[in-house]
Amino acid sequence: MKAVGIIAEYNPFHNGHHYQLKWTRKRFSQEAIVVAMSGNFLQRGEPACLDKWTRAREALIGGADLVVEVPLALCFQAADRFAMGGVQVLNQLGVSNLVFGAEHADYDFKQLAAKSMNVSWNYKRYDESYAASYQQAIKERLGFEVSQPNDLLGLAYAKAVLRLGAAIDLAPLSRKDAGYHDANLDMSKKIASATAIRKQILAGKATDVRQFISPDTFEDLTREKVVSWSDLWPMLHYRLLTATPDELDSIYGMAEGIQYRMIEQLELADPQIDFDGWLHKVKNKRFTYTRLSRLALAVLLNLRTEEVKAAMSKPYIRILGFNQQGRKYLSEQKKKVDWPLISNVNQKVKKNYLALDYRAGKLYQMINGHEQDVKRGPIML
Amino acid sequence: MKAVGIIAEYNPFHNGHHYQLKWTRKRFSQEAIVVAMSGNFLQRGEPACLDKWTRAREALIGGADLVVEVPLALCFQAADRFAMGGVQVLNQLGVSNLVFGAEHADYDFKQLAAKSMNVSWNYKRYDESYAASYQQAIKERLGFEVSQPNDLLGLAYAKAVLRLGAAIDLAPLSRKDAGYHDANLDMSKKIASATAIRKQILAGKATDVRQFISPDTFEDLTREKVVSWSDLWPMLHYRLLTATPDELDSIYGMAEGIQYRMIEQLELADPQIDFDGWLHKVKNKRFTYTRLSRLALAVLLNLRTEEVKAAMSKPYIRILGFNQQGRKYLSEQKKKVDWPLISNVNQKVKKNYLALDYRAGKLYQMINGHEQDVKRGPIML
Repeated sequence: MKAVGIIAEYNPFHNGHHYQLKWTRKRFSQEAIVVAMSGNFLQRGEPACLDKWTRAREALIGGADLVVEVPLALCFQAADRFAMGGVQVLNQLGVSNLVFGAEHADYDFKQLAAKSMNVSWNYKRYDESYAASYQQAIKERLGFEVSQPNDLLGLAYAKAVLRLGAAIDLAPLSRKDAGYHDANLDMSKKIASATAIRKQILAGKATDVRQFISPDTFEDLTREKVVSWSDLWPMLHYRLLTATPDELDSIYGMAEGIQYRMIEQLELADPQIDFDGWLHKVKNKRFTYTRLSRLALAVLLNLRTEEVKAAMSKPYIRILGFNQQGRKYLSEQKKKVDWPLISNVNQKVKKNYLALDYRAGKLYQMINGHEQDVKRGPIML
Repeated sequence: MKAVGIIAEYNPFHNGHHYQLKWTRKRFSQEAIVVAMSGNFLQRGEPACLDKWTRAREALIGGADLVVEVPLALCFQAADRFAMGGVQVLNQLGVSNLVFGAEHADYDFKQLAAKSMNVSWNYKRYDESYAASYQQAIKERLGFEVSQPNDLLGLAYAKAVLRLGAAIDLAPLSRKDAGYHDANLDMSKKIASATAIRKQILAGKATDVRQFISPDTFEDLTREKVVSWSDLWPMLHYRLLTATPDELDSIYGMAEGIQYRMIEQLELADPQIDFDGWLHKVKNKRFTYTRLSRLALAVLLNLRTEEVKAAMSKPYIRILGFNQQGRKYLSEQKKKVDWPLISNVNQKVKKNYLALDYRAGKLYQMINGHEQDVKRGPIML
């Protein structure tokens, strides 16, 4: 059996994701659909609104055959590394196609990737973010701009495929008509952006977004604790006030002494300040909101550079769930996979592979009340 | 002018403390009364229910002339070190008498101290706490038992005075009739133990203990956020789940790998467990409740051994408040005090002396909303 892969976060799983799975099923009718999903903490440095098990089940109900978790160390990363982590996982699992949404599904992403590979540029201007600086370099190399978020991610996937020399074809799906760009909800449609949906959910208005999500997602959102930075902020606030600058300096991604600014802005602020208020005070041209969110998450989870590097050099694939088709595909592939495939977490697995994800799971459990790792076997649909 | 000293925590300031101040005023009518008070975190490893400024004001209204803060590094310590810290502060300030409550005010504490000085004993039995083992050694040396908490503290004060060679006389005050021992409230009396009073306050029943506290304390308790471990537990819980065993190993007082037990018992427990429930699971014959509370506080405040040692070697005296008499005494003594006398906190003071207390104050502020150090000058009554 062949398979097609999708890299996703499903925060939350909505009609747009469902549409993508149905499109994939139609186009690749004989293949298993494998989803490489981020766990409880996401690429942009935020907690998932629902835990990985809940989101994996929604994806399976929505049409995925196999859902696996991308380890935290690989996915709480800037676009290029995030893309690499997802593509590595899917390549390990032997998928032959990668489906992704793009603003310009007509681009030849592999060709663009080949042209923009190994772009080197001078990231020294102190009034520019890394991402802006990179985009500028890409533009100079390609002769035209790739600037929209999903196009950029598609380009990152294509580069990862090239770098790995993976036998994976790209199948971009147009997001043009799907309304993904709307920051606000268009109530005449069935599809809205995850951001717009999340905004309503976190404001306690899940009912208002019912038309954009499946009945299962709606039920999950009303039954489960919906997690956001506001739940984690008291812990981060506490940690920033009690950690020493040395300790913060050893956190993954800390650079240019930004920890001093993080602490200073907190001490100067009203003690009742929230996560967003604080982050906007710390933000400057060089440290964007997303980069700082990711850094904040690393501080919260106490992810030290040495630990993250160790975890990156020892990757694994965690099986979150499958249906009959996914199970069959997995058993066919098992022997070809180099990375450890983890279905159940025992002490040895926890210690050797899961350290960071286990810690992240324990923290997530503090908020939503559900154990995330020990005694959690794959969902079988 | 001469002065008499009192070492106190005032958690909260109640009629028993008021009685002690009145007794002191009567017996030492010409002296200034100087109180060396713990700040926002106390000897037994717990937060003060009201902050240091509120408690200092209550003490001044209750009859103290000068209230100073004992630095955190000196007061979140087992009895002998706690006593030494308080006596050092009072000795610096030139007091000639030390007033303290004792179950046996008739004991000759200085003589007992001389006999029990430098007791050496074998603390190796693995089924015994340090305190129990020490009391046994004292008993063997003295030929009779000193076992009640205030007698033991009195003995510790006497030993500190001897060790320092300080010209301080001891003035024990009988606590016998004051009802200090009652763990429960005796509503026919005006004095109850701080523990019994606190229990009611934390249960939201401040009105029930109105007869045991001054009108000012009552007003403070109803106006201010009353702080307890339950406010801090989410932060400690979070920290225990995210700190590495190495980080915990560098915390002041950590010994015998107890950090592994602290983490293990937390992971095994119901995620909704509270501070007390957790501590009782960790507790064993060797690690008593109080020792563990103190250790928990050190973890919460991230007090690393090296930092505490550095702070102990660089002590200071923080002025919290005074009346005319206290102010006069202070200005007479100023030039004779070796330790820095700190009235206002600027960046240099914060960095050179206050590091740990500043951190503790920031954490306390997270709960009660009031800045504790910067721009907080002494209360003048």
